[in-house]
Amino acid sequence: MNLKPLGDRVVIKILEAEEKTKSGIVLPSSAKEQPQMAEVVAIGPDILNDEKKKDQIKVNDKVIFSKYAGTEVKIDGEEFTILKLNDILAVVE
Amino acid sequence: MNLKPLGDRVVIKILEAEEKTKSGIVLPSSAKEQPQMAEVVAIGPDILNDEKKKDQIKVNDKVIFSKYAGTEVKIDGEEFTILKLNDILAVVE
Amino acid sequence: MNLKPLGDRVVIKILEAEEKTKSGIVLPSSAKEQPQMAEVVAIGPDILNDEKKKDQIKVNDKVIFSKYAGTEVKIDGEEFTILKLNDILAVVE
Amino acid sequence: MNLKPLGDRVVIKILEAEEKTKSGIVLPSSAKEQPQMAEVVAIGPDILNDEKKKDQIKVNDKVIFSKYAGTEVKIDGEEFTILKLNDILAVVE
Amino acid sequence: MNLKPLGDRVVIKILEAEEKTKSGIVLPSSAKEQPQMAEVVAIGPDILNDEKKKDQIKVNDKVIFSKYAGTEVKIDGEEFTILKLNDILAVVE
Amino acid sequence: MNLKPLGDRVVIKILEAEEKTKSGIVLPSSAKEQPQMAEVVAIGPDILNDEKKKDQIKVNDKVIFSKYAGTEVKIDGEEFTILKLNDILAVVE
Amino acid sequence: MNLKPLGDRVVIKILEAEEKTKSGIVLPSSAKEQPQMAEVVAIGPDILNDEKKKDQIKVNDKVIFSKYAGTEVKIDGEEFTILKLNDILAVVE
Repeated sequence: MNLKPLGDRVVIKILEAEEKTKSGIVLPSSAKEQPQMAEVVAIGPDILNDEKKKDQIKVNDKVIFSKYAGTEVKIDGEEFTILKLNDILAVVE
Repeated sequence: MNLKPLGDRVVIKILEAEEKTKSGIVLPSSAKEQPQMAEVVAIGPDILNDEKKKDQIKVNDKVIFSKYAGTEVKIDGEEFTILKLNDILAVVE
Repeated sequence: MNLKPLGDRVVIKILEAEEKTKSGIVLPSSAKEQPQMAEVVAIGPDILNDEKKKDQIKVNDKVIFSKYAGTEVKIDGEEFTILKLNDILAVVE
Repeated sequence: MNLKPLGDRVVIKILEAEEKTKSGIVLPSSAKEQPQMAEVVAIGPDILNDEKKKDQIKVNDKVIFSKYAGTEVKIDGEEFTILKLNDILAVVE
Repeated sequence: MNLKPLGDRVVIKILEAEEKTKSGIVLPSSAKEQPQMAEVVAIGPDILNDEKKKDQIKVNDKVIFSKYAGTEVKIDGEEFTILKLNDILAVVE
Repeated sequence: MNLKPLGDRVVIKILEAEEKTKSGIVLPSSAKEQPQMAEVVAIGPDILNDEKKKDQIKVNDKVIFSKYAGTEVKIDGEEFTILKLNDILAVVE
Repeated sequence: MNLKPLGDRVVIKILEAEEKTKSGIVLPSSAKEQPQMAEVVAIGPDILNDEKKKDQIKVNDKVIFSKYAGTEVKIDGEEFTILKLNDILAVVE
C-alpha cells in the first residue's frame, strides 16, 4: 500500500531519537518553532515536473522540516507525514 | 441524480470504519488536524482540463483529505463531501 | 423587472423544502457550514465571456451553494440571492 | 460642481424609499448584509477604458450595492456615495 | 523646500472649513469613514509614468480622500499629507 | 565598515532635531503614525537595477519615512536604519 | 555533515558577542525588532539560480538578519539558523 502525494506535497517518515543520535543531530528545546528530521518517502508530481524543484529533493533524502507543518497518517501500522515542499527547510548530507 | 462539481472541486464519499480496517489504514487520534479517507465520485472541469492536474486523481481513487475541509451534502439518502482539489493530500494505492 | 448580475456573479432563487423533497435532496443539519439548493436565474458577463467558465453553469440549473454566501434581495415580491460563481459548489442533475 | 471618481470607482446616488416602492423593490430586513438600490452618477476611467467592464454599467443605471461599501460625501446639499465597481452587485432593469 | 513623493504617492494640502463652504462641499458627520477635501500639491513618478493613471489627477486638482489615509508632515510651517493615489476617491470640478 | 542593503532595502541615518530645525521641518506630535526625516546612506541592488525605481532616490537625499518602519542597527558607534524603499514616503529638496 | 537549504533559504551561523566586539558592531537593546549578525554557511538553489539574487550574497559573508526570523538547528554540536533570503537585511563589509 502506497501514498502518492498530490500537487507539491511530499510524504516523509519521521526519524526516531536513536537515529538522530547516530546521525549526530540534536534538536534544541527552545521556545522557538522546533524543526524535526525525517526521510523522504514519496514526492508529488508538481515537484517532479518542475525544472527548478525536481533536483532539490529525492526519495531517501534526510530532511529537516517545520515541526507543526503537515498532516500525520498511519498506513499498515506505519506513521507518515504529508506536507508541502515549502515546509521542508533543508536536506542533510 | 448526479453532482457535477464546479471549478477545481471534487465530490468524494467518505469511507466507513470497516472499510478502513480492510484497507489497513488507521488514522491517529492526535490533537493535530485529522485526515480522513474517501473515494472520489466526481471531478470538476478545471481539474479535467488542466494538463498538470488531470492525471493526479481519477474517479474511484481512494484519497486522504483534510477532515475540516469541504461541505457535506446528502443526495437520495447518500452523504457526499464537496471540496477543493487542494484539500486532497494524497492518493492511496 | 430583471436583475443583471455584474462581474462573475450569479443570481439564484432558493428552492423551498417541498421542492427539495421532490428532487430527493436532504441537507444535513450538522455543525458544519450548510449548503443550500437553488435554481440559477441570471449569470454575470465575466462568466459568459470566459471560455473555461461559461459551460459550467446555465440558467435553470439546480445548484448547491454555500449557505452564508451572497446577498439577498427582494424584487416584485420575489426573493433572490446574488453571489459569486466561486460560492456555487456543484450542479445537481 | 461634479465628482469625477478615480480608478475603478463609481459615484452613485441612493434612491429613497418612495422610489423603491415605485420600482417594486423591497429590501429585506434580515441579519445578513443588506443591499441598497441607487442610481449611477459617474463612472471612473479604469472602468470606461476596460473592454470587459465598460459595458456592464452606464450612467443612470439603477444598481444594487453592498450597504456598507463606499464613502458618503455631500456636494451642494446632495449626498453621493463613492464605491468600487466590485461593490455593485447587479443592475436592475 | 519641496516634497517629492515616491512611487504612487501624492502630496496634498487639506482645505480648511471656510474653503469647503465656498466650494459648496459639506462633509457629513456620520459614523462611517469620513472623507476630506484637499488640493493636490505633488504627484509621484509611478503615477506620472503610467499611461492609465497620469490623466486622472493633476497638481491643483481638488480631491476627496479617505480621512484616515496617509501621513501628515509639516514643512516650513505648512502641513501636508502624503498618501497613495488609491486613497484618493474622486476629483471635484 | 559598510552596510550593503539586500533587495529593495535602503540604509538611512536619522537626522537629529537640530538638523530638522535648520532645514525648517517640524514633525507634528499627533496620534497618527509619525514620519521622520533621514539621509540616505546606501541603496539596495533591486532598486539600482530597476528602471522605474533607480531615479527616485539617491545617496545623500533627505527623505521622510514611516517612523515604525525598518530595523535599527549600530555600526562603529553610529546608528542606522535599514528599511524597504516602500517605507520611504518622499524626498525633501 | 552538511545542510543544503531548499528554495530561497540560507543557512547562517550566528556570530558570538566577542566577534561582534571585534568587528565593531553593537546591537541596540531597544523595544524594536532586534537584528543579529551572522555568517553565511550555505545558500539555497533558488538564490544561486536567480540572476538578480545570486550576486547579493556569498558564503562567508557577514550579514544582519531579523532576530525572530528562521529556525534553529544543531548539527554535530554546532548551532545553525535556516532562514529565507528575504529575512537578511544587509551584508556588512
